[in-house]
Amino acid sequence: MHIGLIGLGRMGGNMARRLARGGIQVTGYSLGAAERAALAGEPNIAVAAQLEALLEALPSPRIVWLMVPAGEATEQNVAALGARLGAGDLVIDGGNAFYRDSQRRGALLAAQGVGFLDAGVSGGIWGLDEGYGLMVGGGRAHFEAILPLVRVLAPTPDRGWVYCGPCGAGHFTKMIHNGIEYGLMQAYAEGFALLAARKDLELPLGEIAEAWRHGTVIRSWLLDLTAGVLAKPEALEEVGARIADSGEGRWTAHEAIDLGIPAPVISAALMARFASQGADDFGARLLALVRNAFGGHALPPKAPPPDP
Amino acid sequence: MHIGLIGLGRMGGNMARRLARGGIQVTGYSLGAAERAALAGEPNIAVAAQLEALLEALPSPRIVWLMVPAGEATEQNVAALGARLGAGDLVIDGGNAFYRDSQRRGALLAAQGVGFLDAGVSGGIWGLDEGYGLMVGGGRAHFEAILPLVRVLAPTPDRGWVYCGPCGAGHFTKMIHNGIEYGLMQAYAEGFALLAARKDLELPLGEIAEAWRHGTVIRSWLLDLTAGVLAKPEALEEVGARIADSGEGRWTAHEAIDLGIPAPVISAALMARFASQGADDFGARLLALVRNAFGGHALPPKAPPPDP
Repeated sequence: MHIGLIGLGRMGGNMARRLARGGIQVTGYSLGAAERAALAGEPNIAVAAQLEALLEALPSPRIVWLMVPAGEATEQNVAALGARLGAGDLVIDGGNAFYRDSQRRGALLAAQGVGFLDAGVSGGIWGLDEGYGLMVGGGRAHFEAILPLVRVLAPTPDRGWVYCGPCGAGHFTKMIHNGIEYGLMQAYAEGFALLAARKDLELPLGEIAEAWRHGTVIRSWLLDLTAGVLAKPEALEEVGARIADSGEGRWTAHEAIDLGIPAPVISAALMARFASQGADDFGARLLALVRNAFGGHALPPKAPPPDP
Repeated sequence: MHIGLIGLGRMGGNMARRLARGGIQVTGYSLGAAERAALAGEPNIAVAAQLEALLEALPSPRIVWLMVPAGEATEQNVAALGARLGAGDLVIDGGNAFYRDSQRRGALLAAQGVGFLDAGVSGGIWGLDEGYGLMVGGGRAHFEAILPLVRVLAPTPDRGWVYCGPCGAGHFTKMIHNGIEYGLMQAYAEGFALLAARKDLELPLGEIAEAWRHGTVIRSWLLDLTAGVLAKPEALEEVGARIADSGEGRWTAHEAIDLGIPAPVISAALMARFASQGADDFGARLLALVRNAFGGHALPPKAPPPDP
């Protein structure tokens, strides 16, 4: 099997390697020369410097896997592929696209006879060795066509992948996966913050995290990572406290609102990230002035600029 | 080594078995005749029908592990042991006691020369085979004395246990563990509820949960359990929607307030349980009447009685 892979960054580059190790021929394409050079010459991997060269290298019907950032980069690549691919070819978007965008793109390509699968891919930088979790939406026949790829990317051939349903179902499922991730990460962060705040007990956070990994109800892969962080707690002193949010936390909260399904924990985790970004400063300043106005409470001094 | 174990319920009975399998002599005592009978005759296990008989059976210095419900049962047992044990003896409370109660009990026993350890134990009904996670507070010398027990109860001799610090530190750590558990469980519950609500996508919840167990960022032991539940989704139709809360979620939220540390996710998970118990009904009825008063909005019919 021989596929094209567009986007050779942290995710795409390692996916190319895992596919190649599994016996899949990969022709990779990326805008970045450094990313292309990093993969060039590896077994079963070729790189192309232009999209046209990538498409010429592939046997027909062509299978092209996209691993580029959601949003404009995905939009442009799908449009470029739509203009160049034909009936029987197949595009897989492995990025974190909004599922409604994927549904639109799937319909656009289908009008030209080009297949489209939306594939949520989880695993981050650990996926090369541990495998990737995959959640795929689109036509079942298209999914069957890429099953050999899925089996190589997954942790084991029979585990860690799921066909979710029609176009959009894969990215919808990945969106919810990431929403859950927000809640899990915030729950651990709050718990360790409470342990750290009880300075009188001198709790050994790193040892506690390590012990919790085994036999407890809260053991998890995220806890494994957290224990690794807390084994070198000095890093906590060197890092800022602003936490970025990507699209999927917001989309999950929007979806809860559209569906009328309560999601207080996922929403609170998202709001905690907004607060960490300083987005509650206006409200806090307003509160300070109102408390001063009604009770004469002292005004807090203006804080230094937040972490860059 | 030969210890006494008071409380032979779901946790205590299986802990007695795991200790006995590990070569520890266990004399068990329980108020319940059925619980005593269930263990009688098992290798390395004897049962006593009275507390006095238990204490007479133990070699000196005596080690007594309590696995009874937190609150009154623990209070009475500690008092009874305090009246009967002497200098050099040692009590371990393995229940989910409030850590300030444990600090008080430790001081009470210490005044009589009796040692006390507060041991958080996680693992539930799976602990017999998979081992228990243990978080222990109290004097370090006392902890060293029970380390052979800890190594047998833990998943492996070197993993899954931690000495947390002075008296109270073990139950404090277990309290935070359970607070985190509230947040994790609620995050998964919200995510699956959102997947279930998108009926148009016909998402295969059981297959998604099973796939998520492998290679994804959100894989965990609680997700393993959730996948087991969703493999038989008809059970969801047969169960009520009221979720009990035990002490530790509330204590964690109280602790966040006392320390002034934000814990929005753990608090929201606790509030979601209160809502599931119907505790938001008064407020909701008030809202219904006020909406009717200002906007003439229709009043909802009185709901049928909630799940028993």
